[in-house]
Amino acid sequence: MSFEEFTPLNEKSLVDYIKATPALSSKIGADKSDDLVIKEVGDGNLNFVFIVVGSSGSLVIKQALPYIRCIGESWPMAKERAYFEATTLRKHGNLSPDHVPQVYHFDRTMALIGMRYLEPPHIILRKGLIAGIEYPFLADHMSDYMAKTLFFTSLLYHDTTEHRRAVTEFCGNVELCRLTEQVVFSDPYRVSTFNRWTSPYLDDDAKAVREDSALKLEIAELKSMFCERAQALIHGDLHTGSVMVTQDSTQVIDPEFSFIGPMGFDIGAYLGNLILAFFAQDGHAAQGNDRKEYKQWILRSIEQTWDLFNKRFIALWDQNKDGPGEAYLADIYNNPGVLQLVQENYMRNLLLDSLGFGAAKMIRRIVGVAHVEDFESIEEDKRRAVCERSALEFAKMLLKERRKFTCIGEVVSAIQNQS
Amino acid sequence: MSFEEFTPLNEKSLVDYIKATPALSSKIGADKSDDLVIKEVGDGNLNFVFIVVGSSGSLVIKQALPYIRCIGESWPMAKERAYFEATTLRKHGNLSPDHVPQVYHFDRTMALIGMRYLEPPHIILRKGLIAGIEYPFLADHMSDYMAKTLFFTSLLYHDTTEHRRAVTEFCGNVELCRLTEQVVFSDPYRVSTFNRWTSPYLDDDAKAVREDSALKLEIAELKSMFCERAQALIHGDLHTGSVMVTQDSTQVIDPEFSFIGPMGFDIGAYLGNLILAFFAQDGHAAQGNDRKEYKQWILRSIEQTWDLFNKRFIALWDQNKDGPGEAYLADIYNNPGVLQLVQENYMRNLLLDSLGFGAAKMIRRIVGVAHVEDFESIEEDKRRAVCERSALEFAKMLLKERRKFTCIGEVVSAIQNQS
Repeated sequence: MSFEEFTPLNEKSLVDYIKATPALSSKIGADKSDDLVIKEVGDGNLNFVFIVVGSSGSLVIKQALPYIRCIGESWPMAKERAYFEATTLRKHGNLSPDHVPQVYHFDRTMALIGMRYLEPPHIILRKGLIAGIEYPFLADHMSDYMAKTLFFTSLLYHDTTEHRRAVTEFCGNVELCRLTEQVVFSDPYRVSTFNRWTSPYLDDDAKAVREDSALKLEIAELKSMFCERAQALIHGDLHTGSVMVTQDSTQVIDPEFSFIGPMGFDIGAYLGNLILAFFAQDGHAAQGNDRKEYKQWILRSIEQTWDLFNKRFIALWDQNKDGPGEAYLADIYNNPGVLQLVQENYMRNLLLDSLGFGAAKMIRRIVGVAHVEDFESIEEDKRRAVCERSALEFAKMLLKERRKFTCIGEVVSAIQNQS
Repeated sequence: MSFEEFTPLNEKSLVDYIKATPALSSKIGADKSDDLVIKEVGDGNLNFVFIVVGSSGSLVIKQALPYIRCIGESWPMAKERAYFEATTLRKHGNLSPDHVPQVYHFDRTMALIGMRYLEPPHIILRKGLIAGIEYPFLADHMSDYMAKTLFFTSLLYHDTTEHRRAVTEFCGNVELCRLTEQVVFSDPYRVSTFNRWTSPYLDDDAKAVREDSALKLEIAELKSMFCERAQALIHGDLHTGSVMVTQDSTQVIDPEFSFIGPMGFDIGAYLGNLILAFFAQDGHAAQGNDRKEYKQWILRSIEQTWDLFNKRFIALWDQNKDGPGEAYLADIYNNPGVLQLVQENYMRNLLLDSLGFGAAKMIRRIVGVAHVEDFESIEEDKRRAVCERSALEFAKMLLKERRKFTCIGEVVSAIQNQS
């Protein structure tokens, strides 16, 4: 069997592929034995994912298909996304090796990535949040990942030649960007056959979103920022389903939506999904497990994530202020006073962007096409609708009034008051 | 002689080139006769410019050199800029044919553009402003040119696929962008051997610019916007030296700095240079010609340019609200109230951007490397310094306090009060 042109793999042909590929076979001992165990586990919407275990190791094979898997060939989607995913996994992996799985192999023709298998007990963070599990290092790890990947791919560290080269490269991922533009920034605010919500309970709420001019004003600004602002190499889909965790490991996966975009889109996606997890907790409460303490843990995690991110990002800036970055040249920002002034201004704007994008990501998960398991796993419609409505009301307020917040602590207080 | 690789032309080899190029020779009758009159007129800093007159017509040949002409081979500069200049001349020419000279021929290897000769009495607008000449259609024409070129190359008219394709293409003009980054956003705010000013009169003023933290905060935000925000295909150098005029013709030339950048950079460059012309007038006043009326004409021109631009830009938006643009989809911004809300917000932000960039362009012309003839032609140092100081003070105030202005009329009043 030849793999010189794109061929969707199955559990059988994958064996041939691995045996023909030393970068993969040597990782797992496939060269020595036929004893490979292969399991297709892609529960996502877009790709095939195989876990492969051999005599001396394991790995994951992820293959992109030229359409959206869960819908089928009627919704085409460039398999080139695998190239951007592999490129970003490697780039972010170099910057934050502790929190990005290693890539062993990438095949552009086959749209195929071979990478580290995140072995049990790694689970998707979203599932951990639904189960009420505390992760003591989560805020620490995620703030570290975001600070490093965003700082080092921005003009705070790049010169503008390198930056425009990166912009050029990732402009190729336009189809995935367009999907985000549609499902995050457009569909929730108009009548669309893709939209859904917990009906009939949220019928009026969904209609209110579609008729809220102030909300539409804000979402337009964010959409323009998403489309126009090349600030850093962002993951592009950094919700709690793109993070795998154990008690002491945090791994960010699936950056197929990555491009040079606004940093706040990543930070907001992550924080917004933690806020969704918070509002879903009442739906998971049961006798003897009221989730009250867990809700407080989520709130602390939100606050710690931003505060640690802020601290680390500024520390990277200070350490690299004489480096190659061209946004703030050392001979202009040449004393601690002016440096502090521009840093505070930068972080203030970044918090506002993050709150705006975070709110937008919350809204779309309640009245748009793709919902989150946090709410979907609440079986009773009425009970789910109560949780979703609280989250939606908070998100609408945040989107419209985010400029009033001066620190993350105030946001956390507002979440508490809403619930 | 072969032109299969880059060869700088002279008045003799240019004849051979034209005769070998039907798109050029047919324009001027060079195929019929040897009687070509050629004159090198490049008074700019970067290129060769030849006027060619034949038996049946005339044209201009502009050739880019792989370095900055006025400095020499010690300052290399990609001759590829000719490609971006030709591409933008054609694109803007299609959108605003009355105000962009026609391109007859482009040769990428030779970095050579053949285009319409803007015959006398066309002169550079800056020279007209120094001479105190009123142009009755100037505001009308420039607002028309800016509204059309900026609107139709933005996401108000492009879909995001087309937009990212254009971003990719113009990222190639990075060297020219870097020159702007240095001379507009960096050098004036630090010690640089390139900087100069009317010394000793403005020594303290130049130092004050280099020590003004509030100014550095603002210039950092504008530099980031210049580097990161892909809003529209902008000219990139739209000062009054890039416009040729007669009493009834207005022609925009020299878009070699063009790229997908913030609209306010073009609008600000143009308005900022009109404001410089205003502050230079006292230096040109003479017995029996106090320039008082002319200063009022300049102020009216500033106000009319923005107001007409605003009106026309909104009109284009209204006419194309169901068009291909993806920033504001018709089924979201689906009633006059919400459309007006987002349009007012858009124009308000665009005015602020324009005032910021305009102020930055003023400052760099007084304490940076490249000065303007408006001031340079004031012979007496002391007299020139007085004019320059007024302009500099106004520009600093505008950069720091632009958010206080709600309309262009207030800006014009502030100019009047400063002078």
